[in-house]
Amino acid sequence: MGLFSSDIKSLDDLFVHTLQDIYYAESQITKALPKMIDKATDPQLKQGFEAHLAETQNQIKRLEQVFQMHGHTPKGVDCPAIDGILKEANEVAGDVADKDVLDAALIASAQAVEHYEITRYGTLITWAQQLGRQDCASILQQTLDEEKATDKKLTAIAESKVNPKSV
Amino acid sequence: MGLFSSDIKSLDDLFVHTLQDIYYAESQITKALPKMIDKATDPQLKQGFEAHLAETQNQIKRLEQVFQMHGHTPKGVDCPAIDGILKEANEVAGDVADKDVLDAALIASAQAVEHYEITRYGTLITWAQQLGRQDCASILQQTLDEEKATDKKLTAIAESKVNPKSV
Repeated sequence: MGLFSSDIKSLDDLFVHTLQDIYYAESQITKALPKMIDKATDPQLKQGFEAHLAETQNQIKRLEQVFQMHGHTPKGVDCPAIDGILKEANEVAGDVADKDVLDAALIASAQAVEHYEITRYGTLITWAQQLGRQDCASILQQTLDEEKATDKKLTAIAESKVNPKSV
Repeated sequence: MGLFSSDIKSLDDLFVHTLQDIYYAESQITKALPKMIDKATDPQLKQGFEAHLAETQNQIKRLEQVFQMHGHTPKGVDCPAIDGILKEANEVAGDVADKDVLDAALIASAQAVEHYEITRYGTLITWAQQLGRQDCASILQQTLDEEKATDKKLTAIAESKVNPKSV
């Protein structure tokens, strides 16, 4: 297990704890995405989730690089936030029979995940800069840019779907 | 209780379910904010949380207006996502003794909450438009604009805090 919250004494500890938090979150996301790929019916959405799975695997490698640059072994720590977001995604998508409505629910769930990542990477970049770790900040920025781009793509897919049948 | 996920058959159901989700979330946020106000030491941050509490109470009224315009009684539904985000906020902030580090943790937690709201309101606006409810979309847009402004203010506070002591 990673750093317990009771061990957080400095901004450096908080930075490492949050790295561990998002490392666990990214790992849970790689487990959730294959189910979302299976459920999605819109080809563009299915393909988008597939591309994001590959991207997430690369983001995990970047996190491992940041851990190592900062002198820490990559570890996860419990992240109730992502667990809650993914639990809700499962619950909402679980029982929707209509394919267009299910796609809309999947997009909304994926965007909730993206926004969690956007806020955590944004925070990590600010702290990395304050800790004088511009090198770590630059790597984390690459991931933040990808997450924002994914969120925009999902918005575009959601906005393009106007299906009177499902209304 | 609100609409169960097993009752979601149409985009309209999904819209109402998500209204119920964010209605519950906003209510939980009004319970969490007073604790964050108590813990914050930076006067600007404390004042920001106080302003956001008043804003949140108004956002709840707007949600009640949207429920009524759309022919529904305002109700909440379990939202594991916000429960997880707030649980994590409590855990991380719970044991941090250093005041500057605690403020940094509080800002990060508040931004995770803001981003959850940003994604949900963004989704609700898209669906309101697809359902032909531009009137509901306009009201929800007011809240989305406020959430984005709050997130930017929090980023500005976070970036302005460079305290070598806590590094």
